[in-house]
This record gives sequence, C-alpha cells and structure tokens, in this order.
Amino acid sequence: MSFIRNILNSRSQGDGNFFLQLKDILGFKPKAKSFYIKAFTHRSMNLKDELGNAINYERLEFVGDAMLSSVIAAYLFDKVPHGDEGYLTKMRSKVVSREHLNKLGQELNLIDLVQSRIPTSNFGDNIHGNLFEALVGAIYLDKGYNTCEKFIFKRVINPHVDIEMLEGKVISYKSLLIEWCQKEKNTFNYEVYEDTGNDELKHFSVKLSINDKVVSKARATSKKKAEEKASKRAFFAFQNQISKLQ
Amino acid sequence: MSFIRNILNSRSQGDGNFFLQLKDILGFKPKAKSFYIKAFTHRSMNLKDELGNAINYERLEFVGDAMLSSVIAAYLFDKVPHGDEGYLTKMRSKVVSREHLNKLGQELNLIDLVQSRIPTSNFGDNIHGNLFEALVGAIYLDKGYNTCEKFIFKRVINPHVDIEMLEGKVISYKSLLIEWCQKEKNTFNYEVYEDTGNDELKHFSVKLSINDKVVSKARATSKKKAEEKASKRAFFAFQNQISKLQ
Repeated sequence: MSFIRNILNSRSQGDGNFFLQLKDILGFKPKAKSFYIKAFTHRSMNLKDELGNAINYERLEFVGDAMLSSVIAAYLFDKVPHGDEGYLTKMRSKVVSREHLNKLGQELNLIDLVQSRIPTSNFGDNIHGNLFEALVGAIYLDKGYNTCEKFIFKRVINPHVDIEMLEGKVISYKSLLIEWCQKEKNTFNYEVYEDTGNDELKHFSVKLSINDKVVSKARATSKKKAEEKASKRAFFAFQNQISKLQ
Repeated sequence: MSFIRNILNSRSQGDGNFFLQLKDILGFKPKAKSFYIKAFTHRSMNLKDELGNAINYERLEFVGDAMLSSVIAAYLFDKVPHGDEGYLTKMRSKVVSREHLNKLGQELNLIDLVQSRIPTSNFGDNIHGNLFEALVGAIYLDKGYNTCEKFIFKRVINPHVDIEMLEGKVISYKSLLIEWCQKEKNTFNYEVYEDTGNDELKHFSVKLSINDKVVSKARATSKKKAEEKASKRAFFAFQNQISKLQ
C-alpha cells in the first residue's frame, strides 16, 4: 500500500490537476484513487507493485469492457422488446464498436491525463477507447455497479445511443424534418455559428427555425452534428405531427 | 400486464411447485415473477405479449450472459493480479464455456421447470446452459446487480471456480495429496459409499482418512468428484505442510 501511496503522491505533485480534471469527467469524487492512477498509466512507464505485477491500464480494460457490455445489454433488453438475442447482440456491438469507444475517449480528452514515456502523439486511435474502457473499469472497482451504470448512461447511452438510429429506422433526423416541412409547406432555416465558449475544442451552435420561429437549439463539435441534434430535438417536439407522414 | 398475469396464473395453477422449486434454487423469493416465467418458457410455446413480442427465454440469455461475464471479470481481476487482459479473457472463457454452463444448468435440474410443446428429452445439451443464462438474466432484471452477483458466487464461483485449477497449476488435488502422503510416509484411505439422501440423483460420499484419522468428508454426483472434493478440503487443511513438497 505504501508503494501505491508513493505513486499517488508523485502523480499528485507532478500533475496537481489530475484529480480535479477527473472529478469533472466522473461527476463525483473518486474514492479508491489507485484504480484511477492505474487507469491512466501506460505500460511504457514500466511500473510494478511490490509483488512484481504490472501497474497499467490494460487489465482495467477487461473489467470496463465487461461492464459496458452488461449495462448496454440490460438497456437494450428493455428498449428493444421485439429484438431477439442475435439482433440485440448486433445492436450492442454498434454501441461498443472500437470506433465508437475511441470517439467517447476522445470527447473526454482522456489522453491528456495519461502518464507515458512514449509521446502521446505516437499512439494510434485505439488508445482513446482503451482509456475509456479502463476508466469504466476503475469506476466499477471504486464505486460498484450502480455508479458505473450511471456513468455509462451519462456518457454513452443518453448522449449517443439512439435506438431508432441503431435500428436503421432513422438515418438522419435532419432529412426527416426537411421532408416533413416540405410536405406541410413550412419554411425552415438552420442558423449556424461558431461558439467555442469555454471549451478548447471548436464548437458550433445551431438555431433551427420553422416558419420563422425558433423551435430548437443545439451545440456540438461539428456543423453537421449540431444540425442533427437540433433536428432531433425539433423532431421529438413535433413527433405527433411528423409521425402522420410515415 | 393483465396478459402477463394470465400466463402467471395459468403457470401457477398448472405447476403449483414452480415458484417453490425456484425459491430453493435462488435462495430468495422472486419478486417480479414474469421474468422467471419467461426464463422457463421455450419458444415452442409460441407465446406473445399484447404487442406481439415473443415470450420465451432467449432474450434473457443475452442479459444473463453479460452478467456472468461481468461478475466473473471483476472476480478474476481481483484474484489473478499477475494475469494480463488476454490471460484473464482466456480464464473467463473456461468458466463460462458452453460445457460448463450446461453442467450448471443440469446440476440445478432447470429443465424440469421448462414449459415446452416439444418433449424435453428431444432437446440437446445446450438447453441446460441456455436456461442457466436466462435464469441469471431474470435475477438481474428482478433484483438488480448485487443479488445477481451473489447468486453467481453461490452457484458458479464458490463451488466451481478454482483459480489454481484454472491456471493449470493443480490438475488434481487427489494426486497432490497422495504424493504428499507417500513422501511423508503417511497412510491414506478413501472410503466411498453411495449416499442418495433426499436427492433424486445418485450421490456419493467420501471419508478421507490419513493415518487412520478422518481428515475430510465430501459428497458429489460421482465417486471421482467426491474424492477430489475431499482431497481439496484436506489439501487446504494441510496446506502449510504440503507446500513444502512443491
């Protein structure tokens, strides 16, 4: 334990912001800090505990991957009552695809927190997803299943999982909305502007007006995403009217 | 809901023992009974809910499989600190192998609880494991992760998961014990007798004596298993002495 404490201290001194940044990402204060230290330690650091076991995030990925699979399995079981086992498995693999996990890790800028002897610019894309899985593993081991489930809802399911989209029923809410406007002879306008706010990353904001009245707003890291998000919000607001279209 | 209630009633009338038998297997009283009804309904029953969705255990297998994976992942992470991600994955697949899940389902006689239009004798071996997975899924949905974890510890990990065995370090406790006895010039004797007790299945009991003193007892469904179990118990009792052997 004193060994872990030493790493923890060196980490805290070397990077005073680590636990502050982490708290922002997690939405709660980490308790068993050593799990999070591990979750952001790359194997190139060559750290070992007193028994000679490697300290890095790779084993935590195994736990995080399992927790993501479970939480998403239970969610899909509930939300897709018509899907059989094979269909649910396919839907889940879309949600936890390597590409999607990489995006999730990238969005949270997890790579900024990594301790590594190799410059992070040398890593491929997969490190983002691996760090995301390891973080989920650390949350489970620190706080248990329920907190881990909440985190997965907050960071994966609520912002990114759209059952209609996953089922391929809706490819784009924007096209659906435009189709409806044209049919109903409504005018529409997407007003897009750059809106970086307090973020380091460039963001775009969109105001969507129908018949010259603003009906929804959204903000995202690309114009396309912001328009899609605003369209989706409008779609759900007008759902009853739009569903008659289909 | 009234539909589910109807199935539930028909089940309860047709098979008054169902929930009693289930309570024995679970170790607690089921609350949301409809999940367990589903977990023991074969697709040949052709049941559908009011929305036309199939009622059978297949979707529950998806949830149960995920929960088994998670609980066992967290367990192995803790118990095998030297194993990397790949090693842990391999160990887990031994625990949740089709063959092992089939044995677990068979041990609990889950097939006796199934409602099916096809005679259960026509099913292959996999139905045992499928029912076990579905039952785990039902427990999760009824009672949440912690109860589900407890059930997996009680029925899978505690009686069947032996890290030393999984790692291939110990192939047989019986041979280890005999080796030790021979080296230490101790006499040993396995006294085996049939002991069916209240079970329908044939069982065997073993008394293991070393130097004419009974050191352990065990009971299992085969002679070999009972001897192995008794040897393991003796092994852990004599661990300090035996470890000098190795």
